[in-house]
Amino acid sequence: VAGFWKGILSRRPRSLEDLGLSRETIRQIAYHEAGHVLATHLCGDGDTLVYASLIPERKCGYGLVKKMPNPHFMLTSTRRELENAIVVKLAGRAAEEVIFGKDEISTGCGHDLAAATSVATKMVAFWGFSEGIGLVSIDLETAAGVLEVREEAGKILATQYAKALDIIGESRHALNDMAASLIEKRFLTAEDIRRTLGKSASL
Amino acid sequence: VAGFWKGILSRRPRSLEDLGLSRETIRQIAYHEAGHVLATHLCGDGDTLVYASLIPERKCGYGLVKKMPNPHFMLTSTRRELENAIVVKLAGRAAEEVIFGKDEISTGCGHDLAAATSVATKMVAFWGFSEGIGLVSIDLETAAGVLEVREEAGKILATQYAKALDIIGESRHALNDMAASLIEKRFLTAEDIRRTLGKSASL
Amino acid sequence: VAGFWKGILSRRPRSLEDLGLSRETIRQIAYHEAGHVLATHLCGDGDTLVYASLIPERKCGYGLVKKMPNPHFMLTSTRRELENAIVVKLAGRAAEEVIFGKDEISTGCGHDLAAATSVATKMVAFWGFSEGIGLVSIDLETAAGVLEVREEAGKILATQYAKALDIIGESRHALNDMAASLIEKRFLTAEDIRRTLGKSASL
Amino acid sequence: VAGFWKGILSRRPRSLEDLGLSRETIRQIAYHEAGHVLATHLCGDGDTLVYASLIPERKCGYGLVKKMPNPHFMLTSTRRELENAIVVKLAGRAAEEVIFGKDEISTGCGHDLAAATSVATKMVAFWGFSEGIGLVSIDLETAAGVLEVREEAGKILATQYAKALDIIGESRHALNDMAASLIEKRFLTAEDIRRTLGKSASL
Amino acid sequence: VAGFWKGILSRRPRSLEDLGLSRETIRQIAYHEAGHVLATHLCGDGDTLVYASLIPERKCGYGLVKKMPNPHFMLTSTRRELENAIVVKLAGRAAEEVIFGKDEISTGCGHDLAAATSVATKMVAFWGFSEGIGLVSIDLETAAGVLEVREEAGKILATQYAKALDIIGESRHALNDMAASLIEKRFLTAEDIRRTLGKSASL
Amino acid sequence: VAGFWKGILSRRPRSLEDLGLSRETIRQIAYHEAGHVLATHLCGDGDTLVYASLIPERKCGYGLVKKMPNPHFMLTSTRRELENAIVVKLAGRAAEEVIFGKDEISTGCGHDLAAATSVATKMVAFWGFSEGIGLVSIDLETAAGVLEVREEAGKILATQYAKALDIIGESRHALNDMAASLIEKRFLTAEDIRRTLGKSASL
Repeated sequence: VAGFWKGILSRRPRSLEDLGLSRETIRQIAYHEAGHVLATHLCGDGDTLVYASLIPERKCGYGLVKKMPNPHFMLTSTRRELENAIVVKLAGRAAEEVIFGKDEISTGCGHDLAAATSVATKMVAFWGFSEGIGLVSIDLETAAGVLEVREEAGKILATQYAKALDIIGESRHALNDMAASLIEKRFLTAEDIRRTLGKSASL
Repeated sequence: VAGFWKGILSRRPRSLEDLGLSRETIRQIAYHEAGHVLATHLCGDGDTLVYASLIPERKCGYGLVKKMPNPHFMLTSTRRELENAIVVKLAGRAAEEVIFGKDEISTGCGHDLAAATSVATKMVAFWGFSEGIGLVSIDLETAAGVLEVREEAGKILATQYAKALDIIGESRHALNDMAASLIEKRFLTAEDIRRTLGKSASL
Repeated sequence: VAGFWKGILSRRPRSLEDLGLSRETIRQIAYHEAGHVLATHLCGDGDTLVYASLIPERKCGYGLVKKMPNPHFMLTSTRRELENAIVVKLAGRAAEEVIFGKDEISTGCGHDLAAATSVATKMVAFWGFSEGIGLVSIDLETAAGVLEVREEAGKILATQYAKALDIIGESRHALNDMAASLIEKRFLTAEDIRRTLGKSASL
Repeated sequence: VAGFWKGILSRRPRSLEDLGLSRETIRQIAYHEAGHVLATHLCGDGDTLVYASLIPERKCGYGLVKKMPNPHFMLTSTRRELENAIVVKLAGRAAEEVIFGKDEISTGCGHDLAAATSVATKMVAFWGFSEGIGLVSIDLETAAGVLEVREEAGKILATQYAKALDIIGESRHALNDMAASLIEKRFLTAEDIRRTLGKSASL
Repeated sequence: VAGFWKGILSRRPRSLEDLGLSRETIRQIAYHEAGHVLATHLCGDGDTLVYASLIPERKCGYGLVKKMPNPHFMLTSTRRELENAIVVKLAGRAAEEVIFGKDEISTGCGHDLAAATSVATKMVAFWGFSEGIGLVSIDLETAAGVLEVREEAGKILATQYAKALDIIGESRHALNDMAASLIEKRFLTAEDIRRTLGKSASL
Repeated sequence: VAGFWKGILSRRPRSLEDLGLSRETIRQIAYHEAGHVLATHLCGDGDTLVYASLIPERKCGYGLVKKMPNPHFMLTSTRRELENAIVVKLAGRAAEEVIFGKDEISTGCGHDLAAATSVATKMVAFWGFSEGIGLVSIDLETAAGVLEVREEAGKILATQYAKALDIIGESRHALNDMAASLIEKRFLTAEDIRRTLGKSASL
């Protein structure tokens, strides 16, 4: 399947329809990306959006939200900023759950979850930011350490995902607008995003 | 034994009888494949059947149900689609249990179970699709992680196998028709399959 | 000791007496092999005996029961057939226990036990044939998996060994006849075995 | 991000502002370093401060407190001296918590925590200085040993961090003075530090 | 120390006194070897003694009891024979405990214990000869298996050591005679051993 | 720090003062070595002291008590002798605790503890000298074995350390005399040691 996918992408598809995805699947991807956009806007700690896109890119899968890189992320971030970063990473999945239901969450959430887990893992193992384990640096080379850290990281992720569901649930109108724009234009500049958000009075 | 099997196949047997299998064993293989066909028809999420066969193929064992490859499987599949995929993979075993009883399930179910376990494992470890472990990405390089994921994957498999038994149990007539066609013709095209399914009013 | 043994065998001994084994030890080996013969006859699922022998063979130890190879064993075997195969593998030990008592079981049972464990292990880990673990494929590369599978395999072996003791215990006369023939002739063809079994009315 | 950071530093930035850090972040770094300075002064067992700085240095991150090296540290240190060393290492984090609150502790505490954990680990595993494990040398090559030592080290760290919070909490005025000096001058010599401490009557 | 020892032996010492051992230590070694001799005589299952010696031999330590090699040991041994072999291996230690008390058992028992553990381990893991684990072959490459087997092997060793203490305790006179002969002559042939045993009426 | 230390020693310091150690630290080292001297005298099983010194030696740290090597140690040692050897190894730490208190025990005890642990570990794993694990040889290559042995070794060490505290506590006067001699002369021959011990009537 990986080879197939590569083959398809090397033919430079211009749209998700070219990849053979159904209308319904494209709609779901749009909501996923819209979730990331909204969460970045609402609790991104000043992260700057560059664009959101549904145009297939090599190595980036079916959709993408691009942000300005923050060279200080995880170097001087505070605990609260790290928690917000996790909310943003899980907001795509949260949008899928809010709109399509738990059974219809798609596998597109896998890499987001891996990235969020990576931040949560460092919070527990390196920065001493978990209540359960507390203030000690844990060597992740050891099996026991990995398991213990995993449990604590899971608690952090559960808490932040609940926040993501709240944020997305309270901003359904904005989410619908953003997803609709994405489906229509397939590529939203920072300016497009700002204008779409402006329409949603509730934000 | 593996070498023996290779030897037999390189002599290009034309039938399972050529491989020395008994009438009863061939009947059981037919029901196994018929189970896969039926489950694909009933909950295959639009998967397209190409053919079902009892003609020995190199590296494919004694029987085979061929489907069109879905390049997006596990890339944009939803949780529900993954569960259905597991049902389809376990439906061969379910058909054996329904018709021949639990003690007569054959070892032909081994690779199906490995494939179903692989999907269930990713559901738990990568997509956060299990209730017990929840939302966290788990590194399967660690022994503890593997065990934990295994338990959760086992629960998913048990639930989906129960569904497979239900589906097959409720479609016994169709299953009998499909197995009979397979035993008679040894190779069913998509058209043959459709016609056989058409005879079973209950579907 | 391994070198010594090799040395002895390279001198091509013609009998177990040449290897320096006592009369009593040879008698015990005869009962061990007779146990395998009887169990194959009673629950061998059509396995064909070729010969039973007490003539030392290179790499085969002190005694041997030779069967026609079954190329489909473990490829299309049913759960019940696998259980029977375990009974046959443990029947040599069972014969020793029935005749000489638990304290006099010999170390000759080691390789039989390893082979029976191997079948029971695949039943649990690959074919989903255990009640305790159920329907999930288990990766035996992991320590935790190995332990769990070992416990379940142990239960399967205990159940099948109890069956083996029953079968052998109920066929004592036939066992005595078979062991006596083996001690007398040292090599029994399929025809010899059949004739000896024929004498035991109880079978 | 690592490459980005390297790139920035190779352009020899003259201030944290050159690195693009916000006013608020710089203030937090200043308090972190001021915490180390204060704790060294109050329970450093005669450790001599050389300078404290907010000028970016290659490989030293955003801020630095330099002390005279003590060649006998951990060679003839007493249990009490090791505990004090841990207090000093955790005092930067303690200062952040006291001033900005638990949610705003920054990731800058990671290397301090690793260093404090390393001392606490040797206390438990090599010097027999923990109540829970007691008098035995523990091989940290083994997974079980690592876990056990980790738990005990965690208790030592929790106790010493509580001390650090106390010390810093009781010296808030001195902390404010030191942080203010650091923000103003960006580089404090031993003499500057002494003068700043002199102003805080409570010490 | 190993090099020291090697050095001493290469100078070909003619007696344990040449190695600098005290009178009391030599007496203890004599009782240790006498214990092995007695146990071999009483429950050696026909093992043939060749000689017992207190003359230092390269690689054999301070004392030695030489037996005819049994090429069938562990190939056709019965459970009871293996248990007796363990009694013989532990009888040297048992003799030390009976004569000098538990606190004065010497480190000379280390290799005996390793050899007895090796037999007990195979009894549990390969021949299915333990009550606790029962009938299953255990792969000693896995950590969990090793631990489980170790516990069961420990129970077998405890039972057989109790037997060894009984046997030695009931044969104190014979033990005294044998140790005295060894100290006097330093080398006892099979004939010497037989004559010494003959003197002890109680045997 | 290791390099630093090497550097210092290669300049051949003539005294601990040359290494920059404080008067108080030197006093503590003297008591540590005096503890070893006293314990060797009181329960050294005939071990012969060669000298005690506070003169820095390459690779030997800050102080040293030299004994005649015993080539039979651990080859024919008895259980009681091994326990005494542990008391001697822990007596330096015991002296520090008795004189300076638990909080002021120095890190100089690390290598003593490692050596004592090594003896205790072999007592448990190789010679069967622990009550908890009993008579079985344990392979220290396995993680589970290491942990179990560690716990038992810890119990042996705790018992022997209690003995060391008793011995040292009851010989305070002799300890004071010995430490004073060491501080004054920095190098005590066997004769010096004997004379100093002679002054302490209580011994």
